[in-house]
Amino acid sequence: MPEKNDSLRILGVDPGLGVTGYAVLGVRSGSPEPILLDGGVLRTNERAPLEERLGELHRDLSHIIANHHPDTMAVENIYSHYNHPRTSITMAHARGVIFLASSQAGISVKSYAATEIKKSLVGVGRASKEQVQRMVQQRLALPELPEPPDLADAIAAAYCHIDQTLRRSGDLEAVRQ
Amino acid sequence: MPEKNDSLRILGVDPGLGVTGYAVLGVRSGSPEPILLDGGVLRTNERAPLEERLGELHRDLSHIIANHHPDTMAVENIYSHYNHPRTSITMAHARGVIFLASSQAGISVKSYAATEIKKSLVGVGRASKEQVQRMVQQRLALPELPEPPDLADAIAAAYCHIDQTLRRSGDLEAVRQ
Repeated sequence: MPEKNDSLRILGVDPGLGVTGYAVLGVRSGSPEPILLDGGVLRTNERAPLEERLGELHRDLSHIIANHHPDTMAVENIYSHYNHPRTSITMAHARGVIFLASSQAGISVKSYAATEIKKSLVGVGRASKEQVQRMVQQRLALPELPEPPDLADAIAAAYCHIDQTLRRSGDLEAVRQ
Repeated sequence: MPEKNDSLRILGVDPGLGVTGYAVLGVRSGSPEPILLDGGVLRTNERAPLEERLGELHRDLSHIIANHHPDTMAVENIYSHYNHPRTSITMAHARGVIFLASSQAGISVKSYAATEIKKSLVGVGRASKEQVQRMVQQRLALPELPEPPDLADAIAAAYCHIDQTLRRSGDLEAVRQ
């Protein structure tokens, strides 16, 4: 990584109780595209009680934050899932501990609508999971399609934050906020 | 408090992002009714971002857990609020960090439906907030009506757990589980 002052790390997260995607994107001033520094999925034990699964998720994400020291965390906001209330409520429990891990590390969180994230990446507000995966691969020049889709979604959230801040202002300070 | 072995402490929580009610009930074998050891509400700063509010709530509840060493945490389950999806989703974020605080302290969580909680206390599954407050006051022989209702609801959740375990088995071990 280049020195901290002219570079930034954005942690993108796609929250879920069973599977949470995460991705750390690095960006430096003057550089055209962010690069993927780390990414994957965090899984919790389906047979464990809710409180233990939240404990696992919080611990794993806190480790990732401690390893990478991101400047900002970017997540999709949850208000687009009203048609699946039970899923949304479960996801919101996971999202709560994800926000907490960020706050405990002194990192601010930025939320983006699903449509904003897709628009940043694909150019339109609607796109299939597969289109998102393909565009993420292309934008970040990845050798393979990012799998599973939760990883692609996490990258997309971080990419959207960079797009909405750095690209519009040309200033790394805007990304940091 | 009597010795730990023949007594138990149940932490009841009524989760909310703005206001979370909590109550610690003590119960001992052979004693007819639980007693209220501590209770109140935790409030978060409305103007702070979500991640900071969750941080406040988690910190405050963790302190209460550390002070009282409850054996079990009891909460109302959330699936009764489908008619207010936005409120439920916000509450679920708070509930996530509440479950986490419990898990981090090695305490198991028991969830009860709103109707079960009211039935334990009032004898029927439907009751107004005020009826719950009055019954909580009566059951625990409190000098005043528990205010705000969030405190009464937290007491009610803990009371329900004791009712569903100890009263049915007569054994403190059942409450502990």
